[in-house]
Amino acid sequence: MYTYEHTVRYYETDQMRVVHHSNYIRWFEEARSEFLALHGIDYAVMEKDDCYSPVVSVSCDYITSAKFGETAIVELKLTSFSFAKFSFSYIVTDKQTGNVRATGNSIHCFINGEGKILSLKRLNPKLFAYMQNLVEE
Amino acid sequence: MYTYEHTVRYYETDQMRVVHHSNYIRWFEEARSEFLALHGIDYAVMEKDDCYSPVVSVSCDYITSAKFGETAIVELKLTSFSFAKFSFSYIVTDKQTGNVRATGNSIHCFINGEGKILSLKRLNPKLFAYMQNLVEE
Amino acid sequence: MYTYEHTVRYYETDQMRVVHHSNYIRWFEEARSEFLALHGIDYAVMEKDDCYSPVVSVSCDYITSAKFGETAIVELKLTSFSFAKFSFSYIVTDKQTGNVRATGNSIHCFINGEGKILSLKRLNPKLFAYMQNLVEE
Amino acid sequence: MYTYEHTVRYYETDQMRVVHHSNYIRWFEEARSEFLALHGIDYAVMEKDDCYSPVVSVSCDYITSAKFGETAIVELKLTSFSFAKFSFSYIVTDKQTGNVRATGNSIHCFINGEGKILSLKRLNPKLFAYMQNLVEE
Repeated sequence: MYTYEHTVRYYETDQMRVVHHSNYIRWFEEARSEFLALHGIDYAVMEKDDCYSPVVSVSCDYITSAKFGETAIVELKLTSFSFAKFSFSYIVTDKQTGNVRATGNSIHCFINGEGKILSLKRLNPKLFAYMQNLVEE
Repeated sequence: MYTYEHTVRYYETDQMRVVHHSNYIRWFEEARSEFLALHGIDYAVMEKDDCYSPVVSVSCDYITSAKFGETAIVELKLTSFSFAKFSFSYIVTDKQTGNVRATGNSIHCFINGEGKILSLKRLNPKLFAYMQNLVEE
Repeated sequence: MYTYEHTVRYYETDQMRVVHHSNYIRWFEEARSEFLALHGIDYAVMEKDDCYSPVVSVSCDYITSAKFGETAIVELKLTSFSFAKFSFSYIVTDKQTGNVRATGNSIHCFINGEGKILSLKRLNPKLFAYMQNLVEE
Repeated sequence: MYTYEHTVRYYETDQMRVVHHSNYIRWFEEARSEFLALHGIDYAVMEKDDCYSPVVSVSCDYITSAKFGETAIVELKLTSFSFAKFSFSYIVTDKQTGNVRATGNSIHCFINGEGKILSLKRLNPKLFAYMQNLVEE
């Protein structure tokens, strides 16, 4: 379980006076890229090697509304990691109250610049084994 | 089936040279609010009556990547409409090639300014009957 | 003077119940890329030829607030065009009332993928002459 | 001089493989609201008292391009503070290299929910005196 903090921004709110729902999808990405960087998967470096990691699917259930002035906690868990795909689950809570704001899931893969799916096992067997271990924990 | 056109914007792209995945969630909203306005549900008017329509959940499966310079077609279908909840399905295609870019779903409800769930059946029985008919078609 | 229409989106609002100020900068870009495409400068095509057009500076004065449900009109004028730089002015009005929402300016140049400034005069003398004429009109 | 750090996000990039220019305007807001909160001006609290602080004007000069994977430093300075208006200047640099990415300015005022300009001197004389001192420093 990796924990990421996001300060809610004014420009993330909408006229319902709460965070616009599309921003949670962006917070998932923020948490994910911090987590992956921490474990040696740096998108900025990867993309120089013509390896990209697009989102295959994403979902989000909205429970309560995050507001400007709050700090959102995104708890992220790597839920599966196979040769070509990996998935995460997310729980967003309010730092102060612990109220659950949203839960979500996302699935990802690795592709090259032409859009061909890449096997992480072949690309980087050491990293692959490492990620597999992370999931098993 | 309602069809909405969106011109892909430069600011919607990311460094993968395609539209950032979070923007599809925004296109769903664009299509939805055009569709609802067309059928007499105008968010701007509703909110003056202290009635809001938050997103309860959203999901998106990404098939191929929309690019700057394209026109995206969002086909939207009202898939259910009960006293307190309603849901839509979406298919995003490229106007020129017909390639499917993404598919998605969203669930919504009606609440007042205090967050209390409102029944559309009670709020506006005529509109409720109308929406029910739309689903049955 | 080129006129561009933008339907104000829900996700563009903030909790002040009006459009967030950063979005006007994006509307300027929308108007500009439609205008340039109309005059044969297609960013999507240009970038395949390793020619990019970054923003050198931008400014915006906010007069009144655009709201969800409105249609914003962006009037754009090419105000200068030299061998390496070109600039635009913008006036944003509400379609229904004609109220001025904002005015702005932007300056742009052409660069290649390495960031070297390119001369449009050398790149495409015909287009350069054409743009010069547009400014003089 | 107040210093604010922003981790560049993937969703902030565009297909030029750098941060989209509109995001600097949002970073200015992030720095500003952190600075104001630090000095006792909390937008979230203020808005409950029907006091809002819209942007009157904003400008940004882009020098070099911020990239994903970088940390941007926003140095902010309160440059003027009168009874109804206040302004900031901004310098954005790359944390690692110190390269200047952009410079900017913004002007703000205080209004109530009906859009009437409010005098901070009358609203909160203590805070007004405090802000005046900050400028003089």
